[in-house]
Amino acid sequence: MRRTAFFLSDGTGITAETLGNSLLTQFEGVQIERVTIPYVDNPDKAELAVARINTAAERDGAPPLVFDTIVKQDIRNKIMASRAVFFDVFDTFLKPLEQQLGISSSYTSGKCHSINEFSTYHRRIESVNFALDNDDGGRQQDYGKADIILIGVSRCGKTPTCLYMALQFGIRAANYPLTQEDLDRPGLPDILLRHRHKLYGLTIDPFQLASIRHERRNNSRYASLDQCEWEVDEVERRFREFGITSINTTHFSIEEIATRIMDDVGLVRGVA
Amino acid sequence: MRRTAFFLSDGTGITAETLGNSLLTQFEGVQIERVTIPYVDNPDKAELAVARINTAAERDGAPPLVFDTIVKQDIRNKIMASRAVFFDVFDTFLKPLEQQLGISSSYTSGKCHSINEFSTYHRRIESVNFALDNDDGGRQQDYGKADIILIGVSRCGKTPTCLYMALQFGIRAANYPLTQEDLDRPGLPDILLRHRHKLYGLTIDPFQLASIRHERRNNSRYASLDQCEWEVDEVERRFREFGITSINTTHFSIEEIATRIMDDVGLVRGVA
Repeated sequence: MRRTAFFLSDGTGITAETLGNSLLTQFEGVQIERVTIPYVDNPDKAELAVARINTAAERDGAPPLVFDTIVKQDIRNKIMASRAVFFDVFDTFLKPLEQQLGISSSYTSGKCHSINEFSTYHRRIESVNFALDNDDGGRQQDYGKADIILIGVSRCGKTPTCLYMALQFGIRAANYPLTQEDLDRPGLPDILLRHRHKLYGLTIDPFQLASIRHERRNNSRYASLDQCEWEVDEVERRFREFGITSINTTHFSIEEIATRIMDDVGLVRGVA
Repeated sequence: MRRTAFFLSDGTGITAETLGNSLLTQFEGVQIERVTIPYVDNPDKAELAVARINTAAERDGAPPLVFDTIVKQDIRNKIMASRAVFFDVFDTFLKPLEQQLGISSSYTSGKCHSINEFSTYHRRIESVNFALDNDDGGRQQDYGKADIILIGVSRCGKTPTCLYMALQFGIRAANYPLTQEDLDRPGLPDILLRHRHKLYGLTIDPFQLASIRHERRNNSRYASLDQCEWEVDEVERRFREFGITSINTTHFSIEEIATRIMDDVGLVRGVA
């Protein structure tokens, strides 16, 4: 059986999509095609969305599942005329919230991911710049300003994790790759030991590391399993030696790695 | 009146937080403190969460608002004993979804942002690497592989937008800064014209641009309002001349810029 899910919004669609995906992943074995339609904010766009929903209904022989966060009632009415089953996020939760807070909701479109606070936006951009400037061991004189410094072997996930923490939460994350040269010496580089309380380790399964490195530099010594095993061993030994908390990234998504690290060290989400 | 909202999850908390924030931004004028507690996946953590909720209830003199996506019933029962008002995301929507799909949900914790598909994860990491390699006009020989190439003056938001599209949607986005040197000449650089169908313009209010540049290089010519006005004028003229679709980033968040661009050019979200 094939089904289609639509995530509709008069804003970015991020809320409808996040919620819908989260719910749908609870159903294994059903093939569900997912379509996000953002900025459904006028009658023309609503009619286009209805046409797409009805086409999917026809093709699937079953009503599409529609998760929507559309605020304006006239737009919603148009959408509700389509041949779908509705999971209405705002209708469900706004009324009880209004009751709790004792005020009416503003029913304003696309508030969540709009630029509500310039300072917050600014903090995120600034954190992205920080992550880029302090990526891969660059500009180490800024470590004093870092919220956290990720360390680990090359290609274990440090850069995407730093960028995700910057973009999503406005956190200043630097990263330092422990290279062959670093690992040939005992201990850790001075620059890292000076900021020891900010260090957090990333490690990875050597087989997966070798596979990732092969894509970058095929058949190099850098990508060989021997080299990967040696580097991971050396790095993990140092994490133990210096009591550095670490996470094995092998089976985690970027979101999970970032969230677990922040939870571990008590980093508060600056942006939400 | 002060209220506290908790976003609770046995996973990353991203779904509860996204939904809760989206709903709460509909209420202006109420000061709501927001606390995310991820990985509430055992009885001890549940009890810690209950203690934090009850402390907030005491302090606020009103029950906290709890948005939760906890799946396991024994953990939920513990949380439900706290002095809070509950907005239960899964309870609300999973039952009707089960009915629609004709199967039971798996009730598995933290499925959404876990690493369900290695290929998807891989695509995102690879797209982040692509964005970094092709940031700021670097490595232009890869433009053939780009899904989109963002162009605009320095500091108008190109880099964060590229990284967001890569991390969130697995899209390969390059960016090229149009510098004084480029703008002193007529037209656009050859390398861009060769990929004209992939170009998308970013522009920005010159005052905001000057303010952003001042933080980077205070009192430089680069940050002067005159220079910013001239560059923005020149860039916008070229967008018109070559029929390049563009967005003014001044009042938009990174999410909005990325979503609007993707919607404009019909880029399908590769990862959701």
